[in-house]
Amino acid sequence: MSRSASQSHKAVVFIAASETDANLYYATRFIAPDPFIYLEIKGERLLVMNDLEIDRAKSQASVDRVLSYTEIEQRARDQGVASPGSADIVHVVLRDAKIKQVLVPGNFPFRHATRLQELGYQVHAKPDPFYEQRVVKTAEEVRHIEEAQRATEAAVAAAHAVLRRATIVKNELWFEDSPLTSERVKKLINVKLMEADCVAQHTIVAGGEQACDPHNEGSGPLPANRSIIFDVFPRSATTRYFADMSRTVVRGTPSPELVRLYQTVKDAQEEAITKIKDGADGMRIHRGICDRFEKAGYKTGLVNGRMQGYFHGTGHGVGLDIHEAPRISRTGSLLQEGHVVTVEPGLYYPGLGAVRIEDMVLVTSDGCRNLTDFPKTFELG
Amino acid sequence: MSRSASQSHKAVVFIAASETDANLYYATRFIAPDPFIYLEIKGERLLVMNDLEIDRAKSQASVDRVLSYTEIEQRARDQGVASPGSADIVHVVLRDAKIKQVLVPGNFPFRHATRLQELGYQVHAKPDPFYEQRVVKTAEEVRHIEEAQRATEAAVAAAHAVLRRATIVKNELWFEDSPLTSERVKKLINVKLMEADCVAQHTIVAGGEQACDPHNEGSGPLPANRSIIFDVFPRSATTRYFADMSRTVVRGTPSPELVRLYQTVKDAQEEAITKIKDGADGMRIHRGICDRFEKAGYKTGLVNGRMQGYFHGTGHGVGLDIHEAPRISRTGSLLQEGHVVTVEPGLYYPGLGAVRIEDMVLVTSDGCRNLTDFPKTFELG
Repeated sequence: MSRSASQSHKAVVFIAASETDANLYYATRFIAPDPFIYLEIKGERLLVMNDLEIDRAKSQASVDRVLSYTEIEQRARDQGVASPGSADIVHVVLRDAKIKQVLVPGNFPFRHATRLQELGYQVHAKPDPFYEQRVVKTAEEVRHIEEAQRATEAAVAAAHAVLRRATIVKNELWFEDSPLTSERVKKLINVKLMEADCVAQHTIVAGGEQACDPHNEGSGPLPANRSIIFDVFPRSATTRYFADMSRTVVRGTPSPELVRLYQTVKDAQEEAITKIKDGADGMRIHRGICDRFEKAGYKTGLVNGRMQGYFHGTGHGVGLDIHEAPRISRTGSLLQEGHVVTVEPGLYYPGLGAVRIEDMVLVTSDGCRNLTDFPKTFELG
Repeated sequence: MSRSASQSHKAVVFIAASETDANLYYATRFIAPDPFIYLEIKGERLLVMNDLEIDRAKSQASVDRVLSYTEIEQRARDQGVASPGSADIVHVVLRDAKIKQVLVPGNFPFRHATRLQELGYQVHAKPDPFYEQRVVKTAEEVRHIEEAQRATEAAVAAAHAVLRRATIVKNELWFEDSPLTSERVKKLINVKLMEADCVAQHTIVAGGEQACDPHNEGSGPLPANRSIIFDVFPRSATTRYFADMSRTVVRGTPSPELVRLYQTVKDAQEEAITKIKDGADGMRIHRGICDRFEKAGYKTGLVNGRMQGYFHGTGHGVGLDIHEAPRISRTGSLLQEGHVVTVEPGLYYPGLGAVRIEDMVLVTSDGCRNLTDFPKTFELG
């Protein structure tokens, strides 16, 4: 697979840290913590690396050539630039290639773009997806995502096992003679994932009222008889691909209203999965869930100044970013064979509680393959 | 402390994800995985948040007001913008405030800057440090860094304890009946750090030839009788501050040349620390180390197409980013009371081996306080 996005008259320019820029990592398969220069010039893929990183780049990066920042910086100085910056270094290389138009990602740093414009370049931003083929996963990429997902399932299973063994003391969960807090359960999950070389951040284990805010990570003692949302989305430290899964559980006795809330979300989630296939419209799938919730009597909107009901998207792509194209949401995208997307409706009602259920699926020509292998059990007993 | 950077006629504009943008997290103390809008208008600090994040932002963010993206998007549509993007949302808010000049960070996304320019704004980029006061750490920030550093020391101590207990089999380290690999030791460190709520990524445990590439993370069996570099720099998951420490050790019997290499780096590192104080010039401190290495006969430069000697900076600021201002390097900065910087000279010679020793210090009015509390022991026995 060629990862080049360049056209002959335009050079592709990145100045970014691949640690935080998934497009740059995708293009180079090289990880560095500080910004570096990547260029695509007439089909050739080039890195410009400082002395610290150049040898590692030569041995690890999937590019055609690695140039020395130090050497090019000296050439810029020889040409009269007193304090050459990254854009001046790019200029030295592009001048050699006689190119005056550059194609950059939408998040290209404004200060470097301004400098390139000062140097006479036409700077064109290409919106995401910068590399269209990044959205369509190869078999190898799907394997990486599945590996991270297996680790996620093992970690959540270990956490649920602890919840099952917990005792209920005054409407709170206790384990080994102390309150079972969100913090304890999150740490158990995160440590278990690190043991599998997966880095989990912002793991959500939020119960009761806290779960009614979808991104509240949870804190303090976990409640009995109320729903607890688990949302776990680690990145593999070895492959850098993410996985993503949510489950909602209860210990003790849920109210009949909460049981109905759970069943409504579960039915909607499973129906949405049946609609996913090559060519399906993400916006329609999302609207289908919204309509279903409305018809079941679950209203969405502000109540006492706070959002409740269903107020987030149904799904997003997963890969080298945790949230990437395509979207299954009110903006939506057409789904295509090879996309990996989450399906994660939820309902959130302060006072009653919250439910979110999330699987990750691979879009196929006539349906999808569920990459998640984890039971949807509400009552842990 | 006011974190506002705005002047009355210019609005500060961020469109970024605070998960990866430390300036935005510094300004708002609010973490979100996807880009959001932050504005400083005439001293007032505003967030514009989508339905998913708005309630969490209202309760967690240290800003004056949180506006609804959905509501402003509707206003933009009412004003005739068919598909308003983030820059159009900014426009609605700034038009109300009658402001036409914006100040953005250097890494502001080019596509949003272009759209703001189309809408008639003058867009000024401010180079880092965007918030000057971010470079000068408060007592609370220093405590956060020290907490992460204590966890780092405990994790490295646990790893060194394993190395001490290892046996030597054919010039390799063995532990519990199998080769002691870089991977095993890194996992031990990373898991130990996760147990302390610190997220370690790219931990370096690299021995022998691998250590001669400063950012090689290390793989395979660890060698006996050769130097092994540990470089550990986790981020606290609770405070988001980093720590950073490097140590070099050997199991078995180092060559006299390797012992001399170690002693040279250690002496240079400790001398550099004595030079750090308010007003000291980072460039001079760096050059002092370079000169010292040269005088001791340790040359720097390309040998057989590969860099050897001393070819990275002496130190960098540590805080919400692992690498931030100021620099102790050939570009350099003046040090100031309250800076937290690393001091980490190293020497790298393929064939002989590599040594790097790194402490983290707090610059004071007349010297510095070493935030690192970990022995510099070369021979683990």
